[in-house]
Amino acid sequence: MAMVKALFFDVFGTVVDWRNSIAAEIDSFSAERGLALDGQAFALAWRRRYQPAMAKIRSGERGFTDLDTLHRENLLDVLKDLSVTGLSDAEIDLLNMVWHRLNPWPDSVPGLTRLKTKFILATMSNGNVKLMVDMAKHGGLPWDMILGAEIAQSYKPDPETYLAGCRMLRLAPEECMMVAAHNSDLVAARALGLKTAFIARPTEYGPEQKVDFKAEHDFDVIADTMEGVADKLGC
Amino acid sequence: MAMVKALFFDVFGTVVDWRNSIAAEIDSFSAERGLALDGQAFALAWRRRYQPAMAKIRSGERGFTDLDTLHRENLLDVLKDLSVTGLSDAEIDLLNMVWHRLNPWPDSVPGLTRLKTKFILATMSNGNVKLMVDMAKHGGLPWDMILGAEIAQSYKPDPETYLAGCRMLRLAPEECMMVAAHNSDLVAARALGLKTAFIARPTEYGPEQKVDFKAEHDFDVIADTMEGVADKLGC
Repeated sequence: MAMVKALFFDVFGTVVDWRNSIAAEIDSFSAERGLALDGQAFALAWRRRYQPAMAKIRSGERGFTDLDTLHRENLLDVLKDLSVTGLSDAEIDLLNMVWHRLNPWPDSVPGLTRLKTKFILATMSNGNVKLMVDMAKHGGLPWDMILGAEIAQSYKPDPETYLAGCRMLRLAPEECMMVAAHNSDLVAARALGLKTAFIARPTEYGPEQKVDFKAEHDFDVIADTMEGVADKLGC
Repeated sequence: MAMVKALFFDVFGTVVDWRNSIAAEIDSFSAERGLALDGQAFALAWRRRYQPAMAKIRSGERGFTDLDTLHRENLLDVLKDLSVTGLSDAEIDLLNMVWHRLNPWPDSVPGLTRLKTKFILATMSNGNVKLMVDMAKHGGLPWDMILGAEIAQSYKPDPETYLAGCRMLRLAPEECMMVAAHNSDLVAARALGLKTAFIARPTEYGPEQKVDFKAEHDFDVIADTMEGVADKLGC
């Protein structure tokens, strides 16, 4: 692992707690307007539409479309399913921007700050650049560079997403380490030659969580927190 | 100016002192090898080949080629002009990477740190992403995002370079402010609707400097240092 120069981070779930961040905002929004939305259920319903929306783009059925746009389409579907009507475009935009305001897990900023002393830190997320930049400002995430889906014009786990990031940093895959709370993301990165670090986030999906309680492969680093990754990488 | 959300920074000359950084490394390199290179003259000769190299790409005569590659070609020409022979490829690569290790002007990091509390800070440089990331690590430059030539696949002052940056941040040109020590860069940005801030860097080229001693147009902000820009933007 001595050759690793850059760390690539999955963000939703690995660095930030999307479920509780969204639930809290939905609950406030709902209370202010006298609606009866369940923030936790809303967050999960919204996220459940994430992979299917990207699948159409991965398959080529649809051209590359950024995640803000996919999130908004999915939001309209969730609102329709819940028979929520009468929201203005501005209110829908405000709700959709909640993805730009997700809160980091408590260990994320301390761990990233330590890792930044030794490595280039880049996002390798399906979120678009503006989403990642706004989230970094909101949560104090010390990225050196925003890479990922929009830069590559492809969604993980398409190999091009990871490889475009390596190319832009002029690094070989084995000089980059993918850090994620999802086994599938790491398996995809490892198949391309990247090093891998797993962080367990067993509460990411709450009671609905079915997978990713632990590393299912012999990844290069396995830890419970971002600070644990920093410990194992000697930072 | 209340609508400005992001600041775009020219980097070579505006944020970092390329001339003295390169001269010092060339002088060390020369002394170690018993050569008789003049660091200051070398830096200026190398930089003099910068605009002509990009001109071929702007005109379409040559496809987009990153600045590391252009710098290396120009370095070989300078070495040839000075009849320096016998350097290994590794030595030439090491010299070429000096652009990744340029030192900031003393006011740059304090000023950027203040500006970062209120604005998105992005590079809008002709340097490629890796060059900018390495330089940021070297000098502690707190960028939120690396934009510019490689992201746009075009070199300033091509309008596409600035506009691709605005699009990636989902901002209108008037929500972005170009910060530069070069009148021509600001004139190009202003023509597209961006706000503008001029910083005087009267020693950038040393005794050879002919232009850019002061702002030649009524830019939105005119200052002598990066901290002066922060003062005028209320940071």
